[in-house]
Amino acid sequence: MSVAPYEELLGKVEAGLRDMPAGVGFPELEQAMRYSVTAGGKRLRPILLLMAAQAVGGGIDPLLPAAVAVELVHTYSLIHDDLPAMDDDEFRRGRPTCHRVFGEAMAILAGDALLTEAFTLMASPNLVETAGPERVLRGLQELGEAAGVRGLCSGQAEDLRSEGAAVDSDALERIHRRKTGRLFRAVLRIGGILGGGSEEAVEALGRFGEEYGLAFQIIDDILDETGSAAEMGKGTGKDHMRKKATYPSVWGLQLSRTKAAEALNRSLAAIASLGEAAEPLRELARKALERTR
Amino acid sequence: MSVAPYEELLGKVEAGLRDMPAGVGFPELEQAMRYSVTAGGKRLRPILLLMAAQAVGGGIDPLLPAAVAVELVHTYSLIHDDLPAMDDDEFRRGRPTCHRVFGEAMAILAGDALLTEAFTLMASPNLVETAGPERVLRGLQELGEAAGVRGLCSGQAEDLRSEGAAVDSDALERIHRRKTGRLFRAVLRIGGILGGGSEEAVEALGRFGEEYGLAFQIIDDILDETGSAAEMGKGTGKDHMRKKATYPSVWGLQLSRTKAAEALNRSLAAIASLGEAAEPLRELARKALERTR
Repeated sequence: MSVAPYEELLGKVEAGLRDMPAGVGFPELEQAMRYSVTAGGKRLRPILLLMAAQAVGGGIDPLLPAAVAVELVHTYSLIHDDLPAMDDDEFRRGRPTCHRVFGEAMAILAGDALLTEAFTLMASPNLVETAGPERVLRGLQELGEAAGVRGLCSGQAEDLRSEGAAVDSDALERIHRRKTGRLFRAVLRIGGILGGGSEEAVEALGRFGEEYGLAFQIIDDILDETGSAAEMGKGTGKDHMRKKATYPSVWGLQLSRTKAAEALNRSLAAIASLGEAAEPLRELARKALERTR
Repeated sequence: MSVAPYEELLGKVEAGLRDMPAGVGFPELEQAMRYSVTAGGKRLRPILLLMAAQAVGGGIDPLLPAAVAVELVHTYSLIHDDLPAMDDDEFRRGRPTCHRVFGEAMAILAGDALLTEAFTLMASPNLVETAGPERVLRGLQELGEAAGVRGLCSGQAEDLRSEGAAVDSDALERIHRRKTGRLFRAVLRIGGILGGGSEEAVEALGRFGEEYGLAFQIIDDILDETGSAAEMGKGTGKDHMRKKATYPSVWGLQLSRTKAAEALNRSLAAIASLGEAAEPLRELARKALERTR
């Protein structure tokens, strides 16, 4: 079986995202949803999901609804995080944030609707037909546990409440595990589950996701400290200015780089037993590794 | 088979709601979720779900996660609707609204986490074991379509945008169908599906839900116009003051009462073919009918 590379997967994900529901709801709400969904980005989560499915020999096209679903969860979380009551961000991916264009109420509702759409997509009949209802339901549980009070929402809540406070490395790890790590872990596991992988393969993919997600967050923190606004597509140094808990602020830049590299090496070790079909995942980790040097 | 009456179902639903996840996330977020979930209320949606399951001969206890799930969706929608950027309400069920106690950010996150928890509960292994994975996935789709851009979120969006504008009866119906009717319809259908009902029974229950939901909304609008604050547990006359689209404002009080009664009679007709086990649903409709006189 040939393995689709990043660019091919990206094309499929973008097509899936353009296929969002239209003409079924209040027009301005649909516009706000579409505005945020089509804002670009690396589409890392859906691509990781598809790569995980490939890694266990699963198909790509039938799993697209699940890939789109995890990107919608990510997009919803960005819309809500950007709100004035939350991080109060004005730009995202180089464009005004959703609430600046459509107002706060519509942005809240757009996030709500995207989150709901994600779970609706995860239960879509096509997906169920391909992966079987039991695996789809397991995938749904993984997504729900990663996105809710056990994951994303609690990570964001603690992150907000720790602004300006002294954050030790335990709290920092907990925040980022919940805010980033759990969803990355879930995304890889969902791909493995829906792709028909064995328990061992799903476990291995989940560990890859956790370690890769950790490295991703550390590198993001480092770039926020050192990168340019153009490179990031958003204001930089902002986390620092707002006294948010970041890896460089707790560990310093050099140790942060080392920790990211260690996590990436662990991610590679986690999927060592998976065959050739896991190569695109390894490539991603190796590329990230280069950025830590 | 004996049929559990309202009070017994209420007790089970309250117990299920108290059983919310604890100690798994950020403590203040869990508090905010619990604060809103335990604020009381009639628990109409989860009780209707269980009554629908009973009406087709299904059990009650194994379907409790689904009943709790629909109440969590309702609670999340109240928290977000009450936000300053939305309806800006200070009281709900006689208590300060979530954002007044925990702040806006935590209230947004509590709503997000409750919505997520609802879908996670709908995929819970116990439920799957009882109802079978196919029926659970159908239920999930019903919930997602009623709660998202096709329903609740679009209803709230249009309701907000039509504040102060002249709303015709078409727009009014569309808003309330999406804001209330679709979720009531879904709740009854989910109960019928998970309870193992035939296609015809599920259809009949869905029609009951739609008509009952419509009547419920009209009566709520009438009470907002005529009731006391104590009776409502929230400020009254508020919809009127904010120039929100209400049935009395479009049709007048008397015609609104007639329309509510007509909808309730249609709801009773819809489930005429269901047997004795549907009696608790009929009782609810008859009680509501008395209130329209």
